[in-house]
Amino acid sequence: MATSMKALRKTHAAKGLQIESVAIPAIGPTDVLVGVKAASICGTDLHIYGWDRWSQGRIKPPVTLGHEFCGYVEQVGEEVTAVKPGDFVSAEMHVNCGYCHQCRLGEAHICRNLRVIGIDQDGAFAEFVKIPASNIWKLDPSAISEQYAAILDPLGNAVHTVLAGEIAGRTVLVTGCGPIGLMSIAVAKACGSSLIFATEVNQHRREMARKMGADVVLNPLGKDATAHILEHTGGTGVDVLLEMSGNPTAIRQGFKALRAGGRASLLGIPTENVDLDLVNDVIFKGAIVQGIYGRRMYQTWVQMTELLKAKRLNLEPLFAERLPMEQFEGAFEQLGLGMAGKILLYPNGVGK
Amino acid sequence: MATSMKALRKTHAAKGLQIESVAIPAIGPTDVLVGVKAASICGTDLHIYGWDRWSQGRIKPPVTLGHEFCGYVEQVGEEVTAVKPGDFVSAEMHVNCGYCHQCRLGEAHICRNLRVIGIDQDGAFAEFVKIPASNIWKLDPSAISEQYAAILDPLGNAVHTVLAGEIAGRTVLVTGCGPIGLMSIAVAKACGSSLIFATEVNQHRREMARKMGADVVLNPLGKDATAHILEHTGGTGVDVLLEMSGNPTAIRQGFKALRAGGRASLLGIPTENVDLDLVNDVIFKGAIVQGIYGRRMYQTWVQMTELLKAKRLNLEPLFAERLPMEQFEGAFEQLGLGMAGKILLYPNGVGK
Amino acid sequence: MATSMKALRKTHAAKGLQIESVAIPAIGPTDVLVGVKAASICGTDLHIYGWDRWSQGRIKPPVTLGHEFCGYVEQVGEEVTAVKPGDFVSAEMHVNCGYCHQCRLGEAHICRNLRVIGIDQDGAFAEFVKIPASNIWKLDPSAISEQYAAILDPLGNAVHTVLAGEIAGRTVLVTGCGPIGLMSIAVAKACGSSLIFATEVNQHRREMARKMGADVVLNPLGKDATAHILEHTGGTGVDVLLEMSGNPTAIRQGFKALRAGGRASLLGIPTENVDLDLVNDVIFKGAIVQGIYGRRMYQTWVQMTELLKAKRLNLEPLFAERLPMEQFEGAFEQLGLGMAGKILLYPNGVGK
Amino acid sequence: MATSMKALRKTHAAKGLQIESVAIPAIGPTDVLVGVKAASICGTDLHIYGWDRWSQGRIKPPVTLGHEFCGYVEQVGEEVTAVKPGDFVSAEMHVNCGYCHQCRLGEAHICRNLRVIGIDQDGAFAEFVKIPASNIWKLDPSAISEQYAAILDPLGNAVHTVLAGEIAGRTVLVTGCGPIGLMSIAVAKACGSSLIFATEVNQHRREMARKMGADVVLNPLGKDATAHILEHTGGTGVDVLLEMSGNPTAIRQGFKALRAGGRASLLGIPTENVDLDLVNDVIFKGAIVQGIYGRRMYQTWVQMTELLKAKRLNLEPLFAERLPMEQFEGAFEQLGLGMAGKILLYPNGVGK
Repeated sequence: MATSMKALRKTHAAKGLQIESVAIPAIGPTDVLVGVKAASICGTDLHIYGWDRWSQGRIKPPVTLGHEFCGYVEQVGEEVTAVKPGDFVSAEMHVNCGYCHQCRLGEAHICRNLRVIGIDQDGAFAEFVKIPASNIWKLDPSAISEQYAAILDPLGNAVHTVLAGEIAGRTVLVTGCGPIGLMSIAVAKACGSSLIFATEVNQHRREMARKMGADVVLNPLGKDATAHILEHTGGTGVDVLLEMSGNPTAIRQGFKALRAGGRASLLGIPTENVDLDLVNDVIFKGAIVQGIYGRRMYQTWVQMTELLKAKRLNLEPLFAERLPMEQFEGAFEQLGLGMAGKILLYPNGVGK
Repeated sequence: MATSMKALRKTHAAKGLQIESVAIPAIGPTDVLVGVKAASICGTDLHIYGWDRWSQGRIKPPVTLGHEFCGYVEQVGEEVTAVKPGDFVSAEMHVNCGYCHQCRLGEAHICRNLRVIGIDQDGAFAEFVKIPASNIWKLDPSAISEQYAAILDPLGNAVHTVLAGEIAGRTVLVTGCGPIGLMSIAVAKACGSSLIFATEVNQHRREMARKMGADVVLNPLGKDATAHILEHTGGTGVDVLLEMSGNPTAIRQGFKALRAGGRASLLGIPTENVDLDLVNDVIFKGAIVQGIYGRRMYQTWVQMTELLKAKRLNLEPLFAERLPMEQFEGAFEQLGLGMAGKILLYPNGVGK
Repeated sequence: MATSMKALRKTHAAKGLQIESVAIPAIGPTDVLVGVKAASICGTDLHIYGWDRWSQGRIKPPVTLGHEFCGYVEQVGEEVTAVKPGDFVSAEMHVNCGYCHQCRLGEAHICRNLRVIGIDQDGAFAEFVKIPASNIWKLDPSAISEQYAAILDPLGNAVHTVLAGEIAGRTVLVTGCGPIGLMSIAVAKACGSSLIFATEVNQHRREMARKMGADVVLNPLGKDATAHILEHTGGTGVDVLLEMSGNPTAIRQGFKALRAGGRASLLGIPTENVDLDLVNDVIFKGAIVQGIYGRRMYQTWVQMTELLKAKRLNLEPLFAERLPMEQFEGAFEQLGLGMAGKILLYPNGVGK
Repeated sequence: MATSMKALRKTHAAKGLQIESVAIPAIGPTDVLVGVKAASICGTDLHIYGWDRWSQGRIKPPVTLGHEFCGYVEQVGEEVTAVKPGDFVSAEMHVNCGYCHQCRLGEAHICRNLRVIGIDQDGAFAEFVKIPASNIWKLDPSAISEQYAAILDPLGNAVHTVLAGEIAGRTVLVTGCGPIGLMSIAVAKACGSSLIFATEVNQHRREMARKMGADVVLNPLGKDATAHILEHTGGTGVDVLLEMSGNPTAIRQGFKALRAGGRASLLGIPTENVDLDLVNDVIFKGAIVQGIYGRRMYQTWVQMTELLKAKRLNLEPLFAERLPMEQFEGAFEQLGLGMAGKILLYPNGVGK
């Protein structure tokens, strides 16, 4: 086996990324080394590429990016029994401590000492990536394709958000139709939601929202979307708000369209404080507001895998392009234009 | 308006039913009189027709049967504002007291003083039926057909059972494929279940189970169904057992096929005590067993209506025949043969 | 029986209240007339007395105030069977419609068409008050005293808030120690909470917080309360925030002291929009935020009554004074000074 | 450090136990070696001592018994960071695999591959015991005494059972007042239960039940306990059944005393199949039946520790005797007589 590999890295505290040759990671007794097949670019990667304020505070170069991927196990530590070389896998890239209050309460996804592979330590935009065995998610290659397997991380965000409360027989509003918003539409529909509304400013994404199964797709900058939703629900409002935009105006509109007693699950990340009409939109309404972060470890993974195995989710419209990792610049540029599709990078060649 | 009407009644404490002319019910200030369009025959009606032991203890002739129906409001009491003549409706036929411990806790479906229209007082196998306004369920005739509207009572049983716990991304076993079992398959699938297993001794019903969406349909009298299910779930067992047969052997097999930590929702009615391996099948397993009765008032009705409005449920295979009420004898005979379809009776003619 | 009675009313759109003689209410078939024994003054009554902006928008004079009370049934409508003259009762003063989406889902406390007795129609600061039978809450006079029975409305707010999620073995922060905040401390302790923190600017109320069972009582204007709470919880933060102040600063401090995955139940009513750090305090934290309004109908009433019957709650420190209704001016003045105790008015004399 | 130690072991497939000198366990990189301070005798240990049928099927001699204990960390493996030598600890003795369906769903306590220390491998009736680091539960010695720390395993059973559903403001029936039943009474009361009924055939245990806080204690062999409970609850039945006896008759009586919609949490272990009136006691009642096994890992441990730290539980009446481990014969004999108290064994001397 070779000792060095290609990796797509943030090498300096500045805009851009570089392909470098680095050492293949050495694994410890409870680690797994995975040969990366396909890795998908996340919105977070775009922020790090652009070196925005958040990135400057969080990222310590040099580091290899990439936290959405699939691959095949190359090597396992001596105490690892759950997987073996050759297994087809993806992984939860949030690594929890196991001992904090949240970990002990079964809420590992909000572990106090969480570290993220591909953010805080070397990730999957490389020929190989090192992962703790407990975070490896073994997949049946006959049931789940490489493309789907490469985007389980964001799909998990969507599944976590949709299934954070009752969804069957509930009306839904998705505010913001980036990839996770689009996936949420498919997941909500597959899980028995009633009417699905979606709002999105980008026309291309609105078209994708329709393809993913939204019943009513609205441009929040056009006519009064909130009034429209209230009218379509007999004045009651929707049962469930899935907030995927992080936009303060969208958040406020979403709350106005939410029925009394409804659930608002917030995944989108505002870049500033948000001014809320707490009395009318939360308190008098008896609303339930949930912050959603990551994926439940590992309930979300079980649900997601079962939905995929049972062919309940059609995510085909989401896949935009498959490129050799070396062509990353074009991929980042294209994604920067706001198209909602997912682009997959192949560190070892695209293959068939 | 006429003062008398046709009704299909149990007139004597003996086998059989009779069509009689009776007075149209007089309504009180909070009642609604509904002109019955279509009424569906329930398994319970077959028991009463046959005058079995349970019927002898519960039914006080003379009484008009029928508790699955739809129709159009004919007349409303002076304090009724929620519906008006001409409205298309069905109704929850379980009438709760409003004041017992369960009613106060929001569990009206298991009210201590529950009375059932069509069992304890005159029901819907008649030209008109009297219903308390609070039990009327208004429907949008452009969204829900008369056929579907006539079977909301058993569909509600299925929805109540399936949605009594998590279903999305869960493997399911339905034991017993009578009408409610069959409906449960459709509801589970619509609400995102993973693999659905079904067991049923009757071949015709097994075929219907496949049509309704079951993935694996087994004859429990043939090969070892439990072993088969365990094998298909990697030895783990299913996440959810929906027990629809009431058969003690099926119940025990269902528990053996249930995973540790799984949910067993029991709707089928055993006619005798059931001998259970509580230690291995419930206690060490950490299983959750739920008795299911009726429909949640009115959460189930909301969920069911929304699923239908959003066209999530295809129940077409269930509808067997539509007959004028006068031809009830043939209908009861046919249903007695164990076919799973629903037969609708029309007190005022079948129409188009 | 007399035909007129004394009532404490808002007669004009201006500051103040007046005692007037008005007709004893005539009851309908499903109503109950209650002879008021004791009625308690709510913070809302103070707002209406002072004729603030909210009052001006909501109150339509003339109207009799009073929505916290107990008394004895005087007369019942012909269809009422659940209570009879002489019964000792209190009542839920929020009257729901029974037919809106929320009512049908078992969330009557956030009914879309809610009307409040003592706000939207004549209330209990009178010799008699008319209540729908379904809203009457019958009490066992040997188990619950008149004083306790007169404050079930605010106690219900506290019970609803505390029991809106898990409390046993959880650390708690109560922000704001008015009467409902103080009651929440007692309820949380009775229901197995772990360490209880309370913050309050008023020194008298801080002392009462200690008497009610708070373990750590802090002045949020003094040293850094949030840092103190974080330190006392090993840096984790509290499991449960019970927000009782409505003060934007207290709300923000509360969120900072809440652990990742914690529950924030908001009952206090801000008079303006609140600027929140949604990303850090809700989304990344995976927090659950609940708007709390009224009392669950009638789950909260059951829980509250059972806690009182089992002598789990000592509310004695809360009772400040008992006065004939005619001495209302002094009572309102005293309460305006911000003491947390409850003052009871007796329309028919204080008695023993 | 010495290389051998005293241990109380099952050395042969026959009745009885022996004190032997064995090697001090060697620990791996993720293990902890604990010096045992006090270990408590469980009912399971009595079964193994007596070599009953269950023991013969499960126990593979030679093995050191003991799974309820506390002690001080002696040594940690090189990858262990969460504890250090000298720390005061107890431990969850159920060791889960981390990878089965249940483990991945956060239900590690019913792991498919569970191994129990003190049953399947050497336990805590010894000077030292080896435990995986993840199972160690660190305690604050200033908040929790050695006596209490030695019985966290059974206390965890009680906490798991009581808190498996709502308890605040609920009436409770505990059937069977062995140590875990008695603890359940204290836990239910501390967590806000309303009236607590307890049934027990042994008079000494009935007295202890009263000391622990039961309101009504009944001998199920005497007058009709079920009728008595129904009468005391206005004919409704109790909200919660905590079944701690494993006795089929007690189980059936418990179900008869349970209200419609009530919760039955079953921890007691029947030694044979149980014949149940499923229709009337579970299905028509809409009851919820839960199998309870072990302790939730580690939610129960958090709840239990917080209840103890906040001094919510008085378990003093439970402690019967403290003996040097060598005097085990007397301890087993005494416990065999059915007294409910806990006896602690001290492998290194009783101390002060």
